[in-house]
Amino acid sequence: MLVLGIDPGLTRCGYGVVDAAADRSARLVDVGVLRTDPAEPVERRLTAIRAGIEALLDAHAPDAVAVERVFSQHNVRTVMGTAQAAGIAIERAAARGIPVAHHTPSEVKAAVTGYGDADKRQVAAMVQRILRLPAPPKPADAADALALALCHAWRAPSRPAPGSSDALTPAQAAWREAERAATATPRRARPPR
Amino acid sequence: MLVLGIDPGLTRCGYGVVDAAADRSARLVDVGVLRTDPAEPVERRLTAIRAGIEALLDAHAPDAVAVERVFSQHNVRTVMGTAQAAGIAIERAAARGIPVAHHTPSEVKAAVTGYGDADKRQVAAMVQRILRLPAPPKPADAADALALALCHAWRAPSRPAPGSSDALTPAQAAWREAERAATATPRRARPPR
Repeated sequence: MLVLGIDPGLTRCGYGVVDAAADRSARLVDVGVLRTDPAEPVERRLTAIRAGIEALLDAHAPDAVAVERVFSQHNVRTVMGTAQAAGIAIERAAARGIPVAHHTPSEVKAAVTGYGDADKRQVAAMVQRILRLPAPPKPADAADALALALCHAWRAPSRPAPGSSDALTPAQAAWREAERAATATPRRARPPR
Repeated sequence: MLVLGIDPGLTRCGYGVVDAAADRSARLVDVGVLRTDPAEPVERRLTAIRAGIEALLDAHAPDAVAVERVFSQHNVRTVMGTAQAAGIAIERAAARGIPVAHHTPSEVKAAVTGYGDADKRQVAAMVQRILRLPAPPKPADAADALALALCHAWRAPSRPAPGSSDALTPAQAAWREAERAATATPRRARPPR
């Protein structure tokens, strides 16, 4: 199952494409960040985001698109731009008949690391491990988009109903438990100086 | 100058098209509300909004599109949907090379009624008067979209610079003053029972 994850944003819109198999293994297909210049008018920035999203949909023809659910508890100005970018990503996918899913940051963190308040470094480390990458994906927006795609790939097949996305199948729960054990003592090492 | 005003929303997206002449007279061209069903998934609703916006752009080929600037001081859930709808409207217009402008509710109210904290009834009454309509436009979203289009038509020619939209030309100030006098004692009559 090919999933495009999108961590929406106007200045940086992270994207990640993973190919997830039924055995829960997954392969990195594409990852990156669409960037727009904050000095540009918002309409030009949104058009750039839209063109970038369409290029990704053209290139990968994903089976599903997962978009991080936006909340407004943070900076109000940033959130408006983020919601606008999210709306465009959602609409462009839906217009092609591609199923669109929404996951909260907590759901994504829980799915990938085993707990909902993991920090960005832990998410990136687990994404690296799951996809067998030589290094954690950077920047954080790209890692988050990959985590989102993985989260969706693992949740989607067993729970198609929109309202029931918070429950886990026994297999998902077992897997989550295993991941939790694997990350019980997260390294907090800093680079040597 | 043909201006499409959009009062963005996911459940109700108001639109109004006015043809404004250089002498500040204006003619109603189109007005209405794009509605989507809150029970539908957000992606389907956004696609419906996008199709509606594109149909309006096709039908009228406006010289400019004015979109109400969204703030998040109100209901957070509503605001996210509103911002998503706004993003789509902005992007679809920009993708056609149509200039897009943003005005705050206060700017719109000030432009149309003469004061920035006019209530919805006063805005609708002034829109009715300016466009010589037999009755105030309904619902409020449609009246607001017309007010937005009028606001933009009157501001746009004299102030193309994005940063300078808060100032008024002497002619605009004089007109505003005349409007203020005309609405100094707003009627608050209730329908007879």
